[in-house]
Amino acid sequence: MYQLNFKQDRPIDLIGIGRLCIDLNANEFNRPMDETMSFNKYVGGSPANIAIGASRLGLKSGFIGKVSDDQMGNFIVQYLKKDNIDTSNIAVDDTGAVTGLAFTEILSPEECSILMYRDNVADLLLNTDEVSEEYIKKSKALLVSGTALAASPSREAVFSAIDYALKHGVVVIFDLDYRPYTWKSSKETATYYNLVAEKSDVIIGTREEFGMMEKYQTHETSDHITAQKWFDYKAEVVVIKHGAGGSITYMKDGTSHKGGIFKTKVLKTFGAGDSYASAFIYGLLHDWEISKAMEYGSASASIVISKHSCSDAMPSTDEIDKFIGGAEKL
Amino acid sequence: MYQLNFKQDRPIDLIGIGRLCIDLNANEFNRPMDETMSFNKYVGGSPANIAIGASRLGLKSGFIGKVSDDQMGNFIVQYLKKDNIDTSNIAVDDTGAVTGLAFTEILSPEECSILMYRDNVADLLLNTDEVSEEYIKKSKALLVSGTALAASPSREAVFSAIDYALKHGVVVIFDLDYRPYTWKSSKETATYYNLVAEKSDVIIGTREEFGMMEKYQTHETSDHITAQKWFDYKAEVVVIKHGAGGSITYMKDGTSHKGGIFKTKVLKTFGAGDSYASAFIYGLLHDWEISKAMEYGSASASIVISKHSCSDAMPSTDEIDKFIGGAEKL
Amino acid sequence: MYQLNFKQDRPIDLIGIGRLCIDLNANEFNRPMDETMSFNKYVGGSPANIAIGASRLGLKSGFIGKVSDDQMGNFIVQYLKKDNIDTSNIAVDDTGAVTGLAFTEILSPEECSILMYRDNVADLLLNTDEVSEEYIKKSKALLVSGTALAASPSREAVFSAIDYALKHGVVVIFDLDYRPYTWKSSKETATYYNLVAEKSDVIIGTREEFGMMEKYQTHETSDHITAQKWFDYKAEVVVIKHGAGGSITYMKDGTSHKGGIFKTKVLKTFGAGDSYASAFIYGLLHDWEISKAMEYGSASASIVISKHSCSDAMPSTDEIDKFIGGAEKL
Amino acid sequence: MYQLNFKQDRPIDLIGIGRLCIDLNANEFNRPMDETMSFNKYVGGSPANIAIGASRLGLKSGFIGKVSDDQMGNFIVQYLKKDNIDTSNIAVDDTGAVTGLAFTEILSPEECSILMYRDNVADLLLNTDEVSEEYIKKSKALLVSGTALAASPSREAVFSAIDYALKHGVVVIFDLDYRPYTWKSSKETATYYNLVAEKSDVIIGTREEFGMMEKYQTHETSDHITAQKWFDYKAEVVVIKHGAGGSITYMKDGTSHKGGIFKTKVLKTFGAGDSYASAFIYGLLHDWEISKAMEYGSASASIVISKHSCSDAMPSTDEIDKFIGGAEKL
Repeated sequence: MYQLNFKQDRPIDLIGIGRLCIDLNANEFNRPMDETMSFNKYVGGSPANIAIGASRLGLKSGFIGKVSDDQMGNFIVQYLKKDNIDTSNIAVDDTGAVTGLAFTEILSPEECSILMYRDNVADLLLNTDEVSEEYIKKSKALLVSGTALAASPSREAVFSAIDYALKHGVVVIFDLDYRPYTWKSSKETATYYNLVAEKSDVIIGTREEFGMMEKYQTHETSDHITAQKWFDYKAEVVVIKHGAGGSITYMKDGTSHKGGIFKTKVLKTFGAGDSYASAFIYGLLHDWEISKAMEYGSASASIVISKHSCSDAMPSTDEIDKFIGGAEKL
Repeated sequence: MYQLNFKQDRPIDLIGIGRLCIDLNANEFNRPMDETMSFNKYVGGSPANIAIGASRLGLKSGFIGKVSDDQMGNFIVQYLKKDNIDTSNIAVDDTGAVTGLAFTEILSPEECSILMYRDNVADLLLNTDEVSEEYIKKSKALLVSGTALAASPSREAVFSAIDYALKHGVVVIFDLDYRPYTWKSSKETATYYNLVAEKSDVIIGTREEFGMMEKYQTHETSDHITAQKWFDYKAEVVVIKHGAGGSITYMKDGTSHKGGIFKTKVLKTFGAGDSYASAFIYGLLHDWEISKAMEYGSASASIVISKHSCSDAMPSTDEIDKFIGGAEKL
Repeated sequence: MYQLNFKQDRPIDLIGIGRLCIDLNANEFNRPMDETMSFNKYVGGSPANIAIGASRLGLKSGFIGKVSDDQMGNFIVQYLKKDNIDTSNIAVDDTGAVTGLAFTEILSPEECSILMYRDNVADLLLNTDEVSEEYIKKSKALLVSGTALAASPSREAVFSAIDYALKHGVVVIFDLDYRPYTWKSSKETATYYNLVAEKSDVIIGTREEFGMMEKYQTHETSDHITAQKWFDYKAEVVVIKHGAGGSITYMKDGTSHKGGIFKTKVLKTFGAGDSYASAFIYGLLHDWEISKAMEYGSASASIVISKHSCSDAMPSTDEIDKFIGGAEKL
Repeated sequence: MYQLNFKQDRPIDLIGIGRLCIDLNANEFNRPMDETMSFNKYVGGSPANIAIGASRLGLKSGFIGKVSDDQMGNFIVQYLKKDNIDTSNIAVDDTGAVTGLAFTEILSPEECSILMYRDNVADLLLNTDEVSEEYIKKSKALLVSGTALAASPSREAVFSAIDYALKHGVVVIFDLDYRPYTWKSSKETATYYNLVAEKSDVIIGTREEFGMMEKYQTHETSDHITAQKWFDYKAEVVVIKHGAGGSITYMKDGTSHKGGIFKTKVLKTFGAGDSYASAFIYGLLHDWEISKAMEYGSASASIVISKHSCSDAMPSTDEIDKFIGGAEKL
């Protein structure tokens, strides 16, 4: 059992904050990128994908972020608008920054890699003045993505957003989304991840991501010890993902629940985490049993990893329901 | 009444962390620096001054910091050693960084200004790997100075030190020491000052410094409201200084105490805060009544502002006792 | 008449130095990039295009440059090798730099724009130690592209290459290729362009580019005055291009020749300059009459601007000869 | 014999361009800087010292440079004014840059070292817009100091100044003044030193400095070969200094002259080069025999190295004449 007090009178269900970027997905599969000749363009970035996924499921999503003042930035905003996401709090950079890019390479379903362009990106230039207290207090939940902590001034903007969320009873959901390439050291990462996790109600990450946050600890760890650490602060729900081994969700009352995965035809593994998170959060907002929310997350992930894109492939509730109806659990 | 649990079995009384620099004080007073022809060299930096002051009063002090690999850095370490301060945890930079400089100008006792050299300084390069958990757990108290939060990696090093302090029951004392020139914006400053203040047992600062930390707040403030905010986190003692108007100390139990200042012949105002802090902390460590600790702080400040340097002028208990015996309170 | 002493005993005809990047050309034409959904990948960068064009025409080309240590960099090297270009002097970056990108937008044949990614690019990290005197002295000509002067250490690498070229009698060809986005100011640009032009035998640029180099001058200018300035240094041939107005070539002996353009179906204007340069240089190396070299350049440009890419579309001598046979001069 | 065409109708004799900084000279000699407790403040920087020295000898000097907007910058301008130097073309920085500092350590007359503060210094921020063609064409000679080439935009400002000088027949004197700490590599240094030396009429440097400029060369060198290289460009006079071994001056007509040094009581070696240069240039401007100009330079150097400062100690013609009258040549 978990207790998350989503304030029902708020017009927005979920505000994402952080990375907005472009995925350039190879049109040719199962070959090295050196030999790839054409790419398709999609909106990307973990919190963007989650906001899109949540919107497809019927949640009212909003976003706090920053885009480049060019065709790439404009494409992102237009795409989010078409998906019914409120973009009124997405700032436009005026310094000549670019939109981050992620070129994907799909060597095989199990071997996917990403070539990132993260120098001088607009999303990390979001600053405290661009985070509106009025906006945040209109939402039931705030979704924080770890990559937005990778550099100033975005880092401080996130702390401001969390301060406003705490002040106004907005549930803070922290998706760890740790990408080493934008950080200077793992100890720097651990410092800021821990400061955010202390203030979060829901924490979602892989075993490796939680492990990175425990760099400073000298004693033994385990999923149970990891989860308990955050319950001693403010967390109600901690989700620890073990890849193909499924995931385990701990709740403050001491209970935990193991979730499995569905059989599916995997095209690539990108987007599994974001699609899981959007459907799981959908369940939390509807006060579902944790097991049902986890199953919904798994089903959403199974759908997305069988398709070419992340954001474009985010399913509706009909698609998820239909998938669960016909799927085999592993 | 305040409750600070200084663990009596620890071999070190107080570890300072942060800025170690050089003061170059004009030998000619009451004239603009443009006309000053010679300067005397002293160790400087707020936490360095406090550690020296504490050592002169008989406390066992240590320091965590970083100095340049040149004659300036060597001078600082040798000076601290002569003052019986443990320098085993002062790292030496290997990147060609310099020691920060502060040229002082004393136009009149009321008009003092500082010309700072803070580009590429060694003290802000202290990193998490140079902060030893073993060392911190040997101490009763950790003194954090706000300027060490001004940039990475020093910023993360301070958060690491605080994590270790909390883990091992070391009392955290936060001297705000806000110097705008090393910060990018006051909101950036407020973000990190608040994150540290939430974890501190004792917070010492001027009214202006506390005001800067409340940038995000929209409601009215007062000394009482300011203090209460931090009691809601972890603080036991909050000192708010009003310059020539004396200071007021709040305690978690709801009591407060106003302290006055002594009559003295002022040469310059530099060093008043650091000398106050070192004597006040001396009182806290001896579990003195708060009023007595504040009086000791005021007396120490009165002595230092009548002399040419900050660090060199830090008094012994004999000097303070003698001063209080003969001084007139304003 | 011009006198360029191409040393006939050299095994390489032309070495390019400078930018190696990736063009991502929109597959959908005549629409804004915001609405473009897919891109094709080509090798790009002015000196790379010229080296490829020269190789297609039968010249032996080599290249001095630097690529990123990833799939993009590897793609570039493999592409050049397939085109029979010597890549032995292309260094691979080891600092995590990326390959520069140019996303093209073709709104109409007359309105083309480029969105550049030039932060932290490998090509500008080429350094003096990566420029081999032994290699340069094996070549008849060195092609310098202006963008390689935009930042250190690439800037110094170019000056080293020119020093070696002068020492060993290698003809220096300077293609101005001025791209404002990588420069801090036009005066900075003018400074370095002038220093290189003083040492060049052949200078090729647009009227606007030559105008930018005359920022410091207060008197009137004209094509004739521009050309004469460089003849007073070392130049033998100066080509000034006037877009659709054709081009004019000045020679040190005082003669000049106006060249026209061919009628063609324009898809986009990108690549016109590079294809012109490669065929014009081919003519110079064969000691052709200047008028014939210019016509060959124009024909090559006409072919490339009717096709989707720059590098991939570079024609062979057969294609150019056939085109000239059937084309109408404007 | 040398031919330098100093235009006699120009109101200014010599304009210096480049570094303006502060020397902080230890008041205690023959001890390590770690033990030095007080410092005296002087104007410093090689071209500043030379301009001051020239002015003391009766030349009309001017300066093109940039100072910090603080007491240090103001002190420099006031000092130059008192020495009758035209400061109308010294810009004041508006970006928060500082004045460079040089702390001197005099362990013994033979062992002197300098601790430099060169991060974010105003002098290297001089830009092309701050170099006035009108001003330069009022002068007989332009003195370029190598350190001004160490970084942009000062580097481009120097090239602009040289362009104006060449355009208006101003004699260009290049004092190599190579200080490794502000350069990224010796090849970078060699690149820009060579580009300036090619355009200079007089080149003055130590054997080591000339050697650094020949990094790219593979063949043997000698003073004679070094000098001849620059005569092939534009130089009329090349001075190569061998420290205590005296100096040798080469002239374009093939003649050379060896100069000795005077016996003197050496306090420190700082300032020897600058005082030599100012008196030697004084001789050139008066069209003296080269041997007489060299002797005057040596005498000036002997006076300065026996005193505490560089700039403050620059002698008048009376002092030099008197010194030569009573001195013993080694």
